[in-house]
This record gives sequence, C-alpha cells and structure tokens, in this order.
Amino acid sequence: MQQTYINQLANHVDQEVTIKGWLYNLRSSGKLMFPQLRDGTGVVQCVVLKKSVAPETWEALQKLGQESAVIVRGAVRADERAPGGFEVDVTQAEVVQAVDGYPITPKEHGTEFLMDHRHLWLRSRRQHAILKVRHTIVRAVRDFLDTEGFTLCDAPILTPAACEGTTTLFEVDYFDDEKAYLTQSGQLYNEATAAAFGKAYCFGPTFRAERSKTRRHLTEFWMVEPEMAYATLDDVMDLSERFLSSIAARVLAERGEELKILERDLTKLEQIITPFPRLHYDEAVRLLHEGQERGELETKFEWGGDFGAPDEAYISKKFDRPVMVHRYPAAIKAFYMARDRERPELALGVDVLAPEGYGEVIGGGERATSLEYLEQQIDEHHLPREAFEWYLDLRRYGSVPHAGFGMGIERCTAWMCGIEHVRETIPFPRMLYRLRP
Amino acid sequence: MQQTYINQLANHVDQEVTIKGWLYNLRSSGKLMFPQLRDGTGVVQCVVLKKSVAPETWEALQKLGQESAVIVRGAVRADERAPGGFEVDVTQAEVVQAVDGYPITPKEHGTEFLMDHRHLWLRSRRQHAILKVRHTIVRAVRDFLDTEGFTLCDAPILTPAACEGTTTLFEVDYFDDEKAYLTQSGQLYNEATAAAFGKAYCFGPTFRAERSKTRRHLTEFWMVEPEMAYATLDDVMDLSERFLSSIAARVLAERGEELKILERDLTKLEQIITPFPRLHYDEAVRLLHEGQERGELETKFEWGGDFGAPDEAYISKKFDRPVMVHRYPAAIKAFYMARDRERPELALGVDVLAPEGYGEVIGGGERATSLEYLEQQIDEHHLPREAFEWYLDLRRYGSVPHAGFGMGIERCTAWMCGIEHVRETIPFPRMLYRLRP
Repeated sequence: MQQTYINQLANHVDQEVTIKGWLYNLRSSGKLMFPQLRDGTGVVQCVVLKKSVAPETWEALQKLGQESAVIVRGAVRADERAPGGFEVDVTQAEVVQAVDGYPITPKEHGTEFLMDHRHLWLRSRRQHAILKVRHTIVRAVRDFLDTEGFTLCDAPILTPAACEGTTTLFEVDYFDDEKAYLTQSGQLYNEATAAAFGKAYCFGPTFRAERSKTRRHLTEFWMVEPEMAYATLDDVMDLSERFLSSIAARVLAERGEELKILERDLTKLEQIITPFPRLHYDEAVRLLHEGQERGELETKFEWGGDFGAPDEAYISKKFDRPVMVHRYPAAIKAFYMARDRERPELALGVDVLAPEGYGEVIGGGERATSLEYLEQQIDEHHLPREAFEWYLDLRRYGSVPHAGFGMGIERCTAWMCGIEHVRETIPFPRMLYRLRP
Repeated sequence: MQQTYINQLANHVDQEVTIKGWLYNLRSSGKLMFPQLRDGTGVVQCVVLKKSVAPETWEALQKLGQESAVIVRGAVRADERAPGGFEVDVTQAEVVQAVDGYPITPKEHGTEFLMDHRHLWLRSRRQHAILKVRHTIVRAVRDFLDTEGFTLCDAPILTPAACEGTTTLFEVDYFDDEKAYLTQSGQLYNEATAAAFGKAYCFGPTFRAERSKTRRHLTEFWMVEPEMAYATLDDVMDLSERFLSSIAARVLAERGEELKILERDLTKLEQIITPFPRLHYDEAVRLLHEGQERGELETKFEWGGDFGAPDEAYISKKFDRPVMVHRYPAAIKAFYMARDRERPELALGVDVLAPEGYGEVIGGGERATSLEYLEQQIDEHHLPREAFEWYLDLRRYGSVPHAGFGMGIERCTAWMCGIEHVRETIPFPRMLYRLRP
C-alpha cells in the first residue's frame, strides 16, 4: 500500500491514506483511542473507534508502548483543533513491532543519558526540529554560494601539515609509519582552488583536538569556507553579511514550525539583515574600556589581546544584529593574513560576532600575497618550510589579492535555533569524552 | 573597478569591462598581441593593438609568462570565430604579478609531476572541467534527495567501531589513549536517522586504508548514502535508477562545454535513462558461464563468489545502460543485510554496475530487521557486541523494513567525465603513496 507522509496530508483530505510510522503517544477513553503517530515528517493524531476496527486490532493497539512500529489506514479529516490541522479516522491497523520499555520517556532525563541514547533521542520533537534547521542551513549555504558563482572544491581531510598551530591536531596512522593529521581548515587549499576557479569553497568536517568542554566546542564539526581571488577585506565583509542574512531569511521562511517547537524568538532572526555594523578593533577596545569604567566588565581589556567570551558578549550587546570587528592585531592572527598597509601591526582580518552571546560565527580576511613576507612568517612561526612549499607556489605563480572566511555550521545552527549547547546541533556529536554512539 | 567574469561577457557586448585574471597563452605579431586570459570562469582572447595602449603597457605585456596575474580593461566584441564567442579590445592593462617559469607548460608532463603540482594543475583546462562536473554532480545529488524529502543527517567521521570489517581502517589517536577510526560508511548511523526522519541521507568523506593502487581507488573519497524507513530492495532499485538518471541529465544539461573539453561521448550519458535492467545474481552467473564457453572470459566463474572487474565489465557490456544485479549470496555481503525470504542463502542487496567498465557505482539493499538475527550475525562475524548495542536498539524499538544505498562521488565523476582514473576527480587526491600537497 502506497505510503502517505504526514506532511502531505493536506493533499489528501477526505481520502483514504496509509500512514507508516511509530507510536508517539496513546490516549484512550473507553471505546475511543487516540494514537499519535510520527513518521519522520510530522506527527498526526489518529482516532480509533472500537466499533470501526476488528476486535483483535483494538486489542493489539491498546497494548502498544511508545515507538511501536504501526501502519494505519483511514480517512484524512481536516480539523482546526488538531495539532497539524488533520486527523485520521482509522479503519485498519497493522502492528509491525510492538515495543515495551522505550528508554526515552516524557519524564526528564539527564544529558549523559540522552547523549548515550543519541540514536533514539534524534526521534524526539526538539532534536528533530534542530536537525531540520541544520539541514536548511546547509542547503541555504550551498544555494547562496552556488548562485554567487562559487565552485565547490572539497579540501582534503587527511593532511600532511597543520594550518593553524600543531597542538590541537588529531594524528592518524597513514601507511608505512607515515603520519597524517585531520584537517582543521581547508583555508590553504582554498587559496589554490580560488586561483583556479576565481571563487571556490570547501564544505566538510573539520577537527580540533582541544581539551575544552565549553558549550561552543565539538572535536568534529562542519565548516564552510568560501575564498575569492582578486578580493579584499571589504569584499569578505560584504559577502559575510549577505551570506548570514540569506541563511536567516531561509530558516525563517522554511522552518517556522520547527522554530515554534524550539520556542525561538523570531524577532532575533528577523533582525539579521544587511548592512551589519563594521567596528574597527580599536573601537571595540574602546567599548570594552567604557564597559569596565561603568563596572559592566570586571577586568580591563588590554589592547593587543583576543576577546574572551564576556568581551564578545559585551560588544555584541551594543548592536541589534551581528557586528563585524575588523583589523585585529596581527600578532594574534594566523600567519597568512595580510597586513593593513597604513598600520602594519594590524591584520586585515574580520570576526563576525553573533548577538545573544553566540560569539564568533565567522572568521576571515584578506591573505598575504608576498612570497618574501610569507617565507618570513613561516620561519617566525617555526612552521616546517618544506611542507608549505606548494602553498608558496601560489605566491610565485600569479599571486593576487584574495580573501575568504570560514563558518562553523553547528555554531550557526545553535544560534539560529536559539539553543544553549552545540552538542544538539549535529546528529552524532564528538567531544572530549564523547565518541559514542 | 568592478570585475566582469568571463562567463558573463555575453551580457556586456559593446561595453567596457574589467577582467581580472591570469595569462593563459600569448601570441603576438608585430603590432598586435593576443593574450588569452583565464579568470576561473572561462578563457577569453584579448586583442592589444600597439597604438591603443601606453608604450610601457605594451612593453610589460610582451614579457609576461604563463600564469602572470593581469587586469585588463577594454570593450567586449562578439566574434563567432573566437573561442567562447567574444573578444576584448584592450585599452588598459595592469600587471599584478609578472611570472616567469610556470612549471606546467603545454608540453607533456608525467603523472607524478602533475600530482606533485596538483595545486597548480587544477588551473589546467581539463582538470578545471572535471571539477566543474564534480560540483554539478554534488549539486544534482543534493537537489534530488532534498526534493524527494530526504533529510540531511551527517554521519560522524570519528567512529568507535568498524562498519564493514576492521582491516582497512585508519586509526586515530583520540584523547587519553582512546582509539578512534575514520568512518568507512555512514550506513549504521543512517539506520538511526531514517527511523527518526523517515528518509535521511549522509554525504561526507569516507576512508579506506586499502593498499591497492588501482585506477578506481582513493583512500579518501566522498560518499552519499540515502536510507529509507518502511522500504524494501525494490524501493532501493527504483530510487537508484531515478537517482542516476537525474544526475546524468543534469550533467548533460549544465556541463556541455566541459564534456566537450573532455571529449566525452555524449550518447553514453544520454542512454542513462530509466528503467535500468534488473538482473538476478543467478542470471548474472549464467551470463558469465556463457562468456567463458564462448572464450570471452578466461576462467569459469564459481557461483557464490563476488564479481571481479572483468566479470563486471562483461556483464555490463550486455546492456546499453547501467544494470542492477540483485540478490547476491549472503556470505559475501555485509552482516546487516536482510535475507531473501524464499532463498535465505541470498541477501537482499543490489549493486548497480555502470557501463564502459566503470564497475560498481552503487551498492545497497534492504537491512535485516530482526534483533535475534543480527545478534547472531555479529557473533558469527566476530564483531565486538558491546560496540553494536546502540545499533541493536534500532531493532528493539520500532524495527521496520528499511533500505538504502551508497554511491561514491569520485567514481561517479570519472564515469560521467569518461576518464580513466579517479585521481583526477577530487581536488586533492589521497592514495597509497600520495598524501601531498
């Protein structure tokens, strides 16, 4: 029997349909039963009249526990009072598997328990909603970049060298005692593909072996990194604001139901529109100094340092939408960043800080073009020169100004969903003490 | 000056434009110069009249080597004889970087040399064309699945256990002496997400630590794996043929220019239309026996074995489009496959064999639903039971018939492009002796 998905019921009002799903909830009162079924696309309330079904069907349904697999057949009835707007008057039912003792019950469970049962927890309404939003974000990201003329060029996961530092790398046994490392960023590879395609992006999993346990960190997360040849820091800021506002608009347009389940304040997402304020690092530091003078920040921020989470939160609270802080001290930024021509102590980098304390969602900037400068940077950072020879080739053969950024998908998903912890934003999170299931 | 991309010149005929690119080729004859520029979106021939530009510009351009970075300004002229249909009459030019001695010249280079220079080789016309096709395939795959109602649920890369065997796994040092492995397939995780979303897919890099050096193997490759709840082997075959034919149609529609550069026989792609022939394993074996009797195959194929590359090639040559071989002996298939109810020695699996010797492009099938059967399989395959407890939960709580498949993107790209070796189908290939650049 052809299956009708619950999110398609509107097209089948007053028709007989077959729904194949799992029992989400079951209420019964005498000669009436109200099984709620979920099928992955939605939840629908069914109505079973004792006299409308075979006695053995009535018996079987009554005993079912949560997540029992059930196929029902019946007519779709529009009903404004029903959640979702439809009910199904069941005439036939088949129990595929009767379940007893499903571990995740409506009662409160601890986080560790839920994470241990992630393979089942994904069926819960809230987790389902979050991953639907994640899918929409991935889709919005690819649509945006593809429409803007970027070519997808996936960067390798297994790399011979580190992009940013070596202490937070996962080491892999390659062949014949050779060591490889899991990528932390496709950045350097993107610079090669941008020179080949004009505009290119990579979009894949990246890895950080950080022993941190904050709500913003995963050891494995997905990152999208666009890169443009013949582009500057300003181009990156222009791209960033269009990029983020297009994602927010898409999530608002397509995931209204899920945002409702998540009790998301929609006005926060509606505010993510261009232009975003652009704040020089000096200005940001001035704001922090003000904050400290007013007693709103505990310690005095020293010019030259990187912002901590409280600093980022303080700065972003001054604005109604994401704020782009640019021109950080070069000393705290990656070796490949271009310098400000007027103030060479500053790097042409930008961090986009999300509102509501979500912190840095985008980091990017303009890359250095000079071979000599990069050779010197590689020496100063004590990086193995030989591993970067191919990268230096990009400055030997047709070096042009170029720029790009990276955005972590899970942090963006947490922000869009308005949830506390990134561990709920990826199907199977990997963290310091979490490699299962 | 606003940049105009070469693939947009049609919208700027008889207008002044600025092209920012790299020198692809340079011919000159007395008072005329014909620099060809590429900008990542295409190649255009420019015409420089000595009297139309400043003397120092003429001088500078004349000395430029391949891949010099150049910005030119001039009027776009439609010209049927020009490759691409347009020429630019240059009035201004700026040399961003003059290059001498670009390593990849029009002469023939050895494969190892080109692979060592992959970061530059990507700029070559043929490599550029292949990766544009790859991008279109990725796009077609996601569009197809998203439109069909599948939810993207990325499977983890770092896994605690092996999905299919343990000998071909890359080992990773996780934290505190814990070992992790790079995923070989998202299959088992997909079974969890299909139960949560009805239809789900993962699409990410996968890894095989195989010491093989064939033209079909990479150690790191991208795989898309859709999985459907309440679905059977027949559903997987239906999905597979619609999936592959939609990819071929998309590549034909959008990458005509690239297929021309690759000298692809388009009739081979035009034949990839539904329905695909469905061939029982027994029938396939009968074909192989015939082949051997006719002297077209060297050795007699024994019923029960898996097909080798010559067997696959022989079978697929009998058909004008991909052929779906189904119901293989269970003994040679993965432990989680469902058995044929009438002939339990057979697994409800299918391999889709591509024509022209490209071999298996899709492998999939129906999964076993019974807890007891899977417990027994895990024991028989000597797999660590404890690592599979979460997977067994999927049979304890709402187990339903479900099915899916996996397709490797690079093998599909090689097939669509009609090229010999998968190493050219991914930006930075990883192989047995290839971890750089």
